[in-house]
Amino acid sequence: MTRFGIVGGGLMGHGIAVALAVAGHHVVVYDADCATLASLDERVVRALGRCEMPPDDAGPVAARITAARTLSDMVVGVDAVLEAVPERLDVKQRVLEALEAIIPAMLPVWSNTSVLSLTEVAKGMRHPQRLVGVHWWNPPYVIPLVEVAPGAETDRRFVREACELLNGMGKTTVRLHRDVPGFIGNRLQFALVREALHLLEQEVCDPVTIDTVMRASLGLRWSAVGPMENADFIGLDLTRSILESLAPHLSSAVTFPALEKPLDAGHRGRASGGGLLTWPPGRGEEVARRLENGIRRNLVEP
Amino acid sequence: MTRFGIVGGGLMGHGIAVALAVAGHHVVVYDADCATLASLDERVVRALGRCEMPPDDAGPVAARITAARTLSDMVVGVDAVLEAVPERLDVKQRVLEALEAIIPAMLPVWSNTSVLSLTEVAKGMRHPQRLVGVHWWNPPYVIPLVEVAPGAETDRRFVREACELLNGMGKTTVRLHRDVPGFIGNRLQFALVREALHLLEQEVCDPVTIDTVMRASLGLRWSAVGPMENADFIGLDLTRSILESLAPHLSSAVTFPALEKPLDAGHRGRASGGGLLTWPPGRGEEVARRLENGIRRNLVEP
Repeated sequence: MTRFGIVGGGLMGHGIAVALAVAGHHVVVYDADCATLASLDERVVRALGRCEMPPDDAGPVAARITAARTLSDMVVGVDAVLEAVPERLDVKQRVLEALEAIIPAMLPVWSNTSVLSLTEVAKGMRHPQRLVGVHWWNPPYVIPLVEVAPGAETDRRFVREACELLNGMGKTTVRLHRDVPGFIGNRLQFALVREALHLLEQEVCDPVTIDTVMRASLGLRWSAVGPMENADFIGLDLTRSILESLAPHLSSAVTFPALEKPLDAGHRGRASGGGLLTWPPGRGEEVARRLENGIRRNLVEP
Repeated sequence: MTRFGIVGGGLMGHGIAVALAVAGHHVVVYDADCATLASLDERVVRALGRCEMPPDDAGPVAARITAARTLSDMVVGVDAVLEAVPERLDVKQRVLEALEAIIPAMLPVWSNTSVLSLTEVAKGMRHPQRLVGVHWWNPPYVIPLVEVAPGAETDRRFVREACELLNGMGKTTVRLHRDVPGFIGNRLQFALVREALHLLEQEVCDPVTIDTVMRASLGLRWSAVGPMENADFIGLDLTRSILESLAPHLSSAVTFPALEKPLDAGHRGRASGGGLLTWPPGRGEEVARRLENGIRRNLVEP
């Protein structure tokens, strides 16, 4: 089993720690924020409860995750390190610099970035050939997908070894030929979100209607048949004719008034009690539960 | 119960006929193509089998669907007509002109178009105020969603009555404030497909990888939580920051080399044995079955 050090104990860092520990790996987590680190154990226990893991099994899993009080404590005896700090280039670069100062030259380094360019993140590294983009989906202990990508200077051996380890955990890995901002999943997701916002801005419908459409049509299908298989299924000639007809009408926006408006009014979504939708007390928990149930019913063999 | 006339007995027309007949309505179908019309009964029986309807119930449902040999036969005694002919503006306009010549002035007319502009389709109509865009998803007797939209001249009464009838059948209707090409669902779908083709053209990954990503991440979630609720859930500030960072990299293409290449080589997808993916014998049936199973497991109460 592998011993991991994880920098960043927030939502993704702690979720990845749980995923690794469930698979038998040992994880040491460090976070610069004391409160985040102090709540780690409690959040791990809650995550294992959401996995519906019996207490007898959950105990040993939780015991494989420990908190380190310093970055130097975190790296003692680890076989690989993973950064899951916020998606800001300067933050990621500073963390990687601090890590490289205290780890052996050929220790693998994984970055959970997806939105930033991995090649940019690697700039300033002494050994960029060991940096692998390893993008997990939330919650990492439930969603099977992990996207793996090389930066411009990454040695393919590190990519291969990352995939082997993740596949050995039962994860569904995909390998990108090269690093692009957003990898695959977030580009697909935000291409759709961009068009949804466009429909709001064009006053075609309201936000609830967008979600109703997704949940009562496309969302029913995409866990079973992906968009490329579907394009072949309905015919590439039909697909082309629809796309050629629709594409000139689709959004190419790079600014988003439909988000600016609520944000300017202080509406940030769930956390502030309102955003595109209204968030009365209890809705956040209801959505989280609905999401997990939805994911679970689709986690079946093809 | 309502008596419908449907022009166009292909995939969508016959599927809509089945959906209406299952709900107790009577349907008379006309198609200019004799072979399409001749196979109607057989396809209706097959569709009802796929609904897992017991033969005792299927018989009366099938009996509510009849074929008409002429357009004039089709309209006798109907309360509403629906056109489900191919997505070509000239074809739709010609069919509507022929219909209006033989039906009462205030009989509702539904159009299953989604890709064409409904306002364009209505041009040339004597009574465009009665034309309602009623866009079904395939298969119409399984997928709950029906998108309903007015053309520029449509009287809102016809829109309201269409929604009432569809809701009474247990359909999930959404009303667009105005008609746009692609309505909502196909715009969201093809915004995502456009980006998928972009990733292929940029040689980031192959088509199978796109589908793996969808099925192992986003596809697991979108039947439970739509993109607008998710944006609020993760926070509109985070959503904006990701979008602002990714949007300049997303596709704005209006031409599609990733489709041109296989099409130029005669690869049209399933029908020709190959397209973006390979289609050995039996794959088409396997995909259809997988799709229906996927849809069914998600057709649950929220």
